[in-house]
Amino acid sequence: MFQEAESDPKIAVAEYKKLEAHLRVRLLNEQYRHLNLQDRALLVIVAGIDGAGKGETINLLNEWMDPRHIHTLAFGAPNKQEREFPVAHRFWRHLPPKGETGIVFGSGYSPLFAEAAKNRIDTDQFERQILFVRKFESSLIANGVQVLKLWFHLSREAQHERTEHLLSNPSTAWQVTKLDIKAQKNFKAIRRAGQLVIEATDSPHSPWVIIPSADPQLRAVRTAQAILGAFTQRTLKAPAFHDPAEAKPLHRQPNPLDKLDHKVTITKSDYDTQVLAWQNRLAQAVRSKAFRKRALMVAFEGADAAGKGGAIRRVTRAIDARHFDIMAVSAPKPWELAHPYLWRFWRNVPEHGRVAIFDRSWYGRVLVERVEKLIPRESWRRAYDEINDFEQQLSGSGIILLKFWLSVTPDEQLRRFRERQESPFKQFKITPEDWRNRRNAKQYAEAARDMFAQTDTPHAPWHVLSANDKKHARVEVLKHIVLAVERALA
Amino acid sequence: MFQEAESDPKIAVAEYKKLEAHLRVRLLNEQYRHLNLQDRALLVIVAGIDGAGKGETINLLNEWMDPRHIHTLAFGAPNKQEREFPVAHRFWRHLPPKGETGIVFGSGYSPLFAEAAKNRIDTDQFERQILFVRKFESSLIANGVQVLKLWFHLSREAQHERTEHLLSNPSTAWQVTKLDIKAQKNFKAIRRAGQLVIEATDSPHSPWVIIPSADPQLRAVRTAQAILGAFTQRTLKAPAFHDPAEAKPLHRQPNPLDKLDHKVTITKSDYDTQVLAWQNRLAQAVRSKAFRKRALMVAFEGADAAGKGGAIRRVTRAIDARHFDIMAVSAPKPWELAHPYLWRFWRNVPEHGRVAIFDRSWYGRVLVERVEKLIPRESWRRAYDEINDFEQQLSGSGIILLKFWLSVTPDEQLRRFRERQESPFKQFKITPEDWRNRRNAKQYAEAARDMFAQTDTPHAPWHVLSANDKKHARVEVLKHIVLAVERALA
Repeated sequence: MFQEAESDPKIAVAEYKKLEAHLRVRLLNEQYRHLNLQDRALLVIVAGIDGAGKGETINLLNEWMDPRHIHTLAFGAPNKQEREFPVAHRFWRHLPPKGETGIVFGSGYSPLFAEAAKNRIDTDQFERQILFVRKFESSLIANGVQVLKLWFHLSREAQHERTEHLLSNPSTAWQVTKLDIKAQKNFKAIRRAGQLVIEATDSPHSPWVIIPSADPQLRAVRTAQAILGAFTQRTLKAPAFHDPAEAKPLHRQPNPLDKLDHKVTITKSDYDTQVLAWQNRLAQAVRSKAFRKRALMVAFEGADAAGKGGAIRRVTRAIDARHFDIMAVSAPKPWELAHPYLWRFWRNVPEHGRVAIFDRSWYGRVLVERVEKLIPRESWRRAYDEINDFEQQLSGSGIILLKFWLSVTPDEQLRRFRERQESPFKQFKITPEDWRNRRNAKQYAEAARDMFAQTDTPHAPWHVLSANDKKHARVEVLKHIVLAVERALA
Repeated sequence: MFQEAESDPKIAVAEYKKLEAHLRVRLLNEQYRHLNLQDRALLVIVAGIDGAGKGETINLLNEWMDPRHIHTLAFGAPNKQEREFPVAHRFWRHLPPKGETGIVFGSGYSPLFAEAAKNRIDTDQFERQILFVRKFESSLIANGVQVLKLWFHLSREAQHERTEHLLSNPSTAWQVTKLDIKAQKNFKAIRRAGQLVIEATDSPHSPWVIIPSADPQLRAVRTAQAILGAFTQRTLKAPAFHDPAEAKPLHRQPNPLDKLDHKVTITKSDYDTQVLAWQNRLAQAVRSKAFRKRALMVAFEGADAAGKGGAIRRVTRAIDARHFDIMAVSAPKPWELAHPYLWRFWRNVPEHGRVAIFDRSWYGRVLVERVEKLIPRESWRRAYDEINDFEQQLSGSGIILLKFWLSVTPDEQLRRFRERQESPFKQFKITPEDWRNRRNAKQYAEAARDMFAQTDTPHAPWHVLSANDKKHARVEVLKHIVLAVERALA
């Protein structure tokens, strides 16, 4: 794998000069072509032997291309605030939009290389991490983010020589880091780790390219060529998608909507007592010291006019206005569409001690976007898996996650629509879209059924409630939240 | 001032019912009208006696209006990360865009009220804070953010009664905070503080409205009416602008561009030695422990093709890619235009230990926007003062701030333009706009002269450099940055 690179090949000056001019023009043209097309973002993962000149090469790329559309993203060890979130959070937050290029130092591969360089590898954890990275990448690619991975490599002797050369001049010595020197000692282990990880994560849709790095000019040429190769790839080769439904039909599970009792009600006085009591417990829980090391995310889905807003207000009344955010999810804005659909939800993951409430959520992908045919079939089929991964990362990092589906019967919905139309201050809540959605009720019900079957997981179960009696639904919502939070903090 | 509110007035139920229906319709209509117009953002500052029911009223407003376009912004004591930035940073970051409404708890007024409630007021500091808030508000208004300030007030007896009533029921007791109980004891001091601050900051362009709060229904009506009043105000009354130029002409100062020596050069070998030496010192300085409690902001302005990009690259080569960001400033995007022009720069203020480099900057307001007549004359005249305030806040919070103007002679600029046009990989750097700017050179020179006269301040001086010899300019840029950083860390 490293044979060519460890022979430390060089390029003749004359050939370099010729190639350089040619490559710069092509790189720039391609960069502008994608900027105009906005068809994909390019993510270049930078890794390799320390002291191989990665930073220098990336600086050069910034000179060759238009640097205003290249984002250098360098992730060190996560700081205290970053550790409050799932590991992938900071990568998601900084994903470049379509048309632009991100160059990533210290990617999700760093812990993989570190693990693989150990004398004794924790095989289980290593394999889990490999699987995570592979899934993450294939999801990125399926959602318009191209991934190119570069490994800068050279022989141990050449690495030593380069480091010594920089160290010999006091004006360049600062360029040599502790890692560069350490790499001398640990050359073998780093080399082995590289080999292991590259083999485990090389794939046609997101290949690794080995860059021979002993000669700065050949290094530059090969890097530019690799990026050109990515730019000129006609379409993103998304990995073959293993559809879980092929093995088991989406809906072969009992549908929680079927067994819902829409006759259940609660009296006004019971409601008043219970709402206050649950709000009281919720207030205590989110004000507790233990909650300062956790966070709460609550997603509300359901039919139009099912009473999501009213239920949300009963929840937020128990929480200090300083500690919650409500995200009302509607059609994505242009800059949101320039990112994978989960991006805007990743950006709204709450930090410790906070509550994030979603009035509609990431489930739009498998509900409205599916029913209204806004995306190809494969995209929403794939989304179940992506959403389960997303939620697993959330709950894995200690976030308390609840999902509610508020259901109303068609008659009750019609009654509420009419009531809204007649009320001068509820008219704004009802739009032609609501009536159209109502006509598509059957398709929405199918979509909901498949959604429950695919995303009702142990770490993020669905709470499906009848909201024909709004009061009943509000009490239930509060109760489920309180019990989940109290259980998590216990 | 508080006479009416302390008489604890009430509203009859029948009258309330009538008013409520009327107000809700009007509020919603006005909210949607501004959402479509996108003519202004509305900022509602919430203050008053603790336990007067502020939170309850804001919850109600969220029910009466479309809550998706209301942002409740609650600022507590700044956390560790927030303390790294100037005080106003977090307010700027969360400013709602035009068309939307922000409701602010814990605004910049909180420290003012706290100071004014003390037995011994530090008059100097208090007056400085008052001045700061007044200037901040008038700048917001001039830049499309309307400010409405509400003070919720009631008699001491009514406050006591309301608190006791909530406390008497275990299910509502949690709604009472320590502050509410404290407010009983300190009623007089809080009342006096309110009076003092309101008198000092009430103005026709951003008035205070006292909301009688003993009766929840009257409280709701008065709050809704105050917001309606703001919504229906035809145009934003920006405060009369005191133009510093009326007293002294903008350009009665020596123009640093006049005395610039464009003949100065540096030899290749001197350049190589010096660049490396300064980069070495810069690398040491930004890697030092002391720098972890500071930050560096460097703004580059100057003629097209003056070599800003090349100078920036010589600086960044000395800095770990993980620790700097380059912001290439071009015409604002639509969502940036929905905010005051300084907003996008506030968002890019670096946190501790980081370097932010601006390839063009907030000075666009008084350069391109002035010359190309993109904004009215008053806007750029006002901007000098706003920019000086901005920079004073930056340096006041410990940020090391440098501003460079790279100057080239017209002949040299023409030579570089032609060179760029002929080079296949520099063509992208030259656009029809560059040629037009060149034709407007005289107006740009005037704008630059006024800018130097108005914004060359002790805490943020301009470094005006000849860049006819690119190498000379690069060495000078590095030198000034190194000396400023070393001085600040000493």
